Amino acid sequence: MSDFVLALVIIAGGSLLALGYSLVRARWIYKQPVENKTLKRISGYISEGAMTFLMREYKVLIPFVGFVALFLALANKGMLRYQAVSFVTGASASALAGFIGMRVATASNSRTTHAAQGGLVPALKVAFTGGSIMGMSVVGLAMFGLFILLTLGKIFLGGTTVIMADTILPVISGFSLGASSMALFARVGGGIFTKAADVGADLVGKVEAGIPEDDHRNPATIADNVGDNVGDVAGMGADLFESYVGSIIGSMILGIGVAGSDVFRMKLALFPLILSAAGILAALIGIGLVRVKSGKSAQSALNRGTFGAAGIAALFSFILAFFFLKGEGDISYVSIFFASVIGMVAGSLIGILTEHYTGTDTKPVKKIVKACETGAATTIITGMGVGMMSAFFPIVVITAAILLSHFVAGLYGVAIAALGMLMTLGVQLAVDAYGPIADNAGGLAEMSEFPPEVREVTDELDAVGNTTAAIGKGFAIGSAALTSIILFSAFKEQVGLKVVDLMGVRVITGILFGAVLPYLFSSMAMNAVGEAAFAMIEEVRRQFREKPGILDETEEPDYRRCVDISTASALKEMLLPGIIAVVTPVLIGFLGGPKMLSGTLIGVTASGVVLAIFMANSGGAWDNAKKMIENGSSQGKGSEAHKAAVVGDTVGDPFKDTAGPSLNILIKLMAIISLVIAPMLKNYWGL
Amino acid sequence: MSDFVLALVIIAGGSLLALGYSLVRARWIYKQPVENKTLKRISGYISEGAMTFLMREYKVLIPFVGFVALFLALANKGMLRYQAVSFVTGASASALAGFIGMRVATASNSRTTHAAQGGLVPALKVAFTGGSIMGMSVVGLAMFGLFILLTLGKIFLGGTTVIMADTILPVISGFSLGASSMALFARVGGGIFTKAADVGADLVGKVEAGIPEDDHRNPATIADNVGDNVGDVAGMGADLFESYVGSIIGSMILGIGVAGSDVFRMKLALFPLILSAAGILAALIGIGLVRVKSGKSAQSALNRGTFGAAGIAALFSFILAFFFLKGEGDISYVSIFFASVIGMVAGSLIGILTEHYTGTDTKPVKKIVKACETGAATTIITGMGVGMMSAFFPIVVITAAILLSHFVAGLYGVAIAALGMLMTLGVQLAVDAYGPIADNAGGLAEMSEFPPEVREVTDELDAVGNTTAAIGKGFAIGSAALTSIILFSAFKEQVGLKVVDLMGVRVITGILFGAVLPYLFSSMAMNAVGEAAFAMIEEVRRQFREKPGILDETEEPDYRRCVDISTASALKEMLLPGIIAVVTPVLIGFLGGPKMLSGTLIGVTASGVVLAIFMANSGGAWDNAKKMIENGSSQGKGSEAHKAAVVGDTVGDPFKDTAGPSLNILIKLMAIISLVIAPMLKNYWGL
Repeated sequence: MSDFVLALVIIAGGSLLALGYSLVRARWIYKQPVENKTLKRISGYISEGAMTFLMREYKVLIPFVGFVALFLALANKGMLRYQAVSFVTGASASALAGFIGMRVATASNSRTTHAAQGGLVPALKVAFTGGSIMGMSVVGLAMFGLFILLTLGKIFLGGTTVIMADTILPVISGFSLGASSMALFARVGGGIFTKAADVGADLVGKVEAGIPEDDHRNPATIADNVGDNVGDVAGMGADLFESYVGSIIGSMILGIGVAGSDVFRMKLALFPLILSAAGILAALIGIGLVRVKSGKSAQSALNRGTFGAAGIAALFSFILAFFFLKGEGDISYVSIFFASVIGMVAGSLIGILTEHYTGTDTKPVKKIVKACETGAATTIITGMGVGMMSAFFPIVVITAAILLSHFVAGLYGVAIAALGMLMTLGVQLAVDAYGPIADNAGGLAEMSEFPPEVREVTDELDAVGNTTAAIGKGFAIGSAALTSIILFSAFKEQVGLKVVDLMGVRVITGILFGAVLPYLFSSMAMNAVGEAAFAMIEEVRRQFREKPGILDETEEPDYRRCVDISTASALKEMLLPGIIAVVTPVLIGFLGGPKMLSGTLIGVTASGVVLAIFMANSGGAWDNAKKMIENGSSQGKGSEAHKAAVVGDTVGDPFKDTAGPSLNILIKLMAIISLVIAPMLKNYWGL
Repeated sequence: MSDFVLALVIIAGGSLLALGYSLVRARWIYKQPVENKTLKRISGYISEGAMTFLMREYKVLIPFVGFVALFLALANKGMLRYQAVSFVTGASASALAGFIGMRVATASNSRTTHAAQGGLVPALKVAFTGGSIMGMSVVGLAMFGLFILLTLGKIFLGGTTVIMADTILPVISGFSLGASSMALFARVGGGIFTKAADVGADLVGKVEAGIPEDDHRNPATIADNVGDNVGDVAGMGADLFESYVGSIIGSMILGIGVAGSDVFRMKLALFPLILSAAGILAALIGIGLVRVKSGKSAQSALNRGTFGAAGIAALFSFILAFFFLKGEGDISYVSIFFASVIGMVAGSLIGILTEHYTGTDTKPVKKIVKACETGAATTIITGMGVGMMSAFFPIVVITAAILLSHFVAGLYGVAIAALGMLMTLGVQLAVDAYGPIADNAGGLAEMSEFPPEVREVTDELDAVGNTTAAIGKGFAIGSAALTSIILFSAFKEQVGLKVVDLMGVRVITGILFGAVLPYLFSSMAMNAVGEAAFAMIEEVRRQFREKPGILDETEEPDYRRCVDISTASALKEMLLPGIIAVVTPVLIGFLGGPKMLSGTLIGVTASGVVLAIFMANSGGAWDNAKKMIENGSSQGKGSEAHKAAVVGDTVGDPFKDTAGPSLNILIKLMAIISLVIAPMLKNYWGL
């Protein structure tokens, strides 16, 4: 059996394992009972709203995908036309993963509420299982898509190193572009949706009508709960699907570009696939480790899962490197193993740093709590200070990881480090997606008027979910940074640039221009939230005005219209930033040339990563400062300090849930588009 | 007469012209009457406070300068040891310019108040003359310092092209480092001082004691007025002194590095000097054009001055290029003329764009005013959105200027464009420094209880001053960007790097690391304001507590102690960020190498410029949104919207007056330090 076929078998195994797990556990979820009628009805609205959003999103997405596919088929020559096929496959796989994740998440929320009647242990089990299905669907479908495309490549083109390098990999980079396109819609559109619904629900419901949060009389409350799923399940999933696929394909391209024998280069190109497949198994074992015993905290159970999976993944990495790469070529298998561990450690460190700057009761967050006592202005200034400071050490970690992994195994080592960070994505995403399920479960308990002890259980789950969400965001940014650097390196490889002189004036201006793009993008994203929220506010006011019976519960609010409005404005508002992200690299590539494009990619990555960390962590820190005050710190709930904290939290919301995460997409999308058009640019500029 | 000697004569003439003007006009200022006794007494406090700050600053600066000079003398070899002399000269020249500017500004403020009794025309004349002395002192002393050093170089070393390239210019780059060190203290320290005093005066005086702004019973009010001078006169002056000197020396280095005959290279190296000397004359003519006639606005008078000067400068540039460069070497004189015009146009465009995003009654500021109606959170979000958006077009202008000037005349063209932007610095600084004089004059009118019609005149002057301040900030950032790119190019020239491959892992990590530094620096600067303001608040509270007679005017507050406290904490708090800015390039240069340092410089510039524009413009826009509401827009003064606007303005203050401007210093300082240590790095790394 050739290495190629061996790799295909392994990734088929990995993807079937993941998809099989998802199927079995999804059936289990659907078997869990939901007895309470109100709970059933309301969770039905959320589930329906989530599907409405997805369907509307797909309706916009399909023509977009069709258009790009047509472009790829027409603008390319020869076999490269099949990029169009890879592209459609990538978009479909990511869309399917999002669909499954959302369906299961919106089925798990009510079941978590139900299970919470029996205490923390069963509730965590349902919520985390729901999340784990999302995690496994993402990695399973990513692997499965790659398996299909590589198998087709092998069958129709053969599996020589030259064909792999010149045709298969450039064609398959379309898969990554498909995933990115989907991520653009899910992450940017989802980010706008969730905050528009949130702000709309809060401003009219809480402030104007004076009803509590998550009250079922609020027409926007369902949209708010749908938003949690849209942003944190579908958005986060598509974002990391993109990182996962991008780093696998990028490292395959870098592997085949290493100097050495054909056999060795092929092995290096296939190793990322095998490593990722092994990571699926490690993630599954990690998921199995998440069991909370009575009296132990949910956080420690989740930690055991993620850190356990990482340890097992390290072991697998060593074994695979030993058997697959030992004695071949110039890069020692130990170096490659080290590179993967560097990535894992870097990912964990970023998580720990994020927790330090945003977690409840940490020094920086306490500082914000103290600043709340002197009003909104100091709250904002201090929070921004914390956010800016919080970017420093993660960047030090990322640069150290790049330098170290490059030191042990060259550019390929950097790619392996990125893969190492993403190897156990299955369990990390499970932890991430658990958050919104727990959050929804709490909202449902409130709306369905469950007794307070149920709400206490869901609150505990939710508190853990907030921390995991912040860590997940840090992780998503870190992996986006590494992924885009790898994609960028792969771009340089594909476009045929030998040297890009930093001092070239096009490169410098490219970097400067790239550096401002994240600001433009963030500004548009925040503006979009404002516009979409405004539409939502108008609608909620209209319903309260035209249906006066809503407040005394003689009329039911029209939840659907609110979901519709949030959906429509999210999709409308994401259009312009989306177009900018897609068109900029093409324009710069053809008008300014590949060197200017290289500068732009580095500029957008460096500036975007830092800005994204700043935004995500400021937002997270403000959120938890508010929570601390609500839980009795400083002057407590309802005080002036609390009002200031609410201002901080409101500013932080579009930071951490819209603009910040959108930047991950911007930097990866620009890099992958560049990689996909690299052969055209090479041809156009005669490189 | 050799070209070298001719250039020396011309710059001697330019500097004497500027210094002579300053002397004559300063005598005129001191002859203006100040009759009111309270006015005399209070302005005496301000003037004394400003001197206290400067003296204390120099006390910290002198050991710092001594230490760096010692380092330069010991770490260098051969003639390069004389960098220490250039360094001390640069620091002294900038310090002297700051001293003169502050002295004159604090003498002009009370005289402006007095003159305002006679209406707008005489008041503008006094205020603008005060500012113009600052402007002319800066360019005059910069030129004079260069004249002295170049003359010494010519006498002791001779004036061949080789000696110029290998010894004189590297030695003289120490002059630029001296200016940068001074700028670090004046801009960062000054930025912390001014906002600490401002916040302290506002929070205790206005909020706690309930006395109006600029009330003489407030112990911190003098410190607040001193702060305007410290930040906007001394700080802005030192910042632009640095840009001016940096871009002259940088373009001399790039000029001598152009391929061509020795004579041509020498001409290119000398041309920046001649051009700048001609710019002084143009600026003087521009200053002469600033005359307001009864019934015309002050703004149009100032505009006539700056645009008039730019037109004349363009004419001079053409004439000089024609006579000095026509027919020599490969770069045509027309190209060089065009490059200078590109710089002038870019500078003006940045000003216009800044005005668009921050000016009263502009669309973006009106949007913020509207957002104020829905509370502090939307005010902040909208303002940040405006600030982020506002960075985009200035960056487009800067990149276009770089590309165009490079297209016409290569890297040297980029340098000439930067010089073109700064050529009429004399009048631009005059307009900038006029702002705080007018602001102070208003404060003095209030504190000395002048009739309202006097206050109306000073208010009109002040309103114009706010716009010019915002434009000045945009201009300072734009020139900082171009200057640091030139210094960076000169660094590459000096360190002997042929090619810096963007794809090198050290370069990439350097860029990433560089990109996070502005965030670290801003975070520290904002934190420093918080700490210093806290010390000030404590002091004001203490005075009100221990001297209960202050409020009923039976006791006089201790203004001096407030100035002392603001001074002490400003100097203490700037220490750590200052050390980081100074030490980082040295550490990276010696540990990571010149390539990593190149990446860091580009990263810090790209990320820093964008962040600085964002911060400066958000702050400016919030400031004017508040002003609009106070002048009757939206719900007017005292309303909820006004309260939200005050929050925005308070957040914006450290943005636009501390963190944002400090970034100009950070990026230039890191570039100039790299340039100065370039010969050592070359030696150390064996390049």
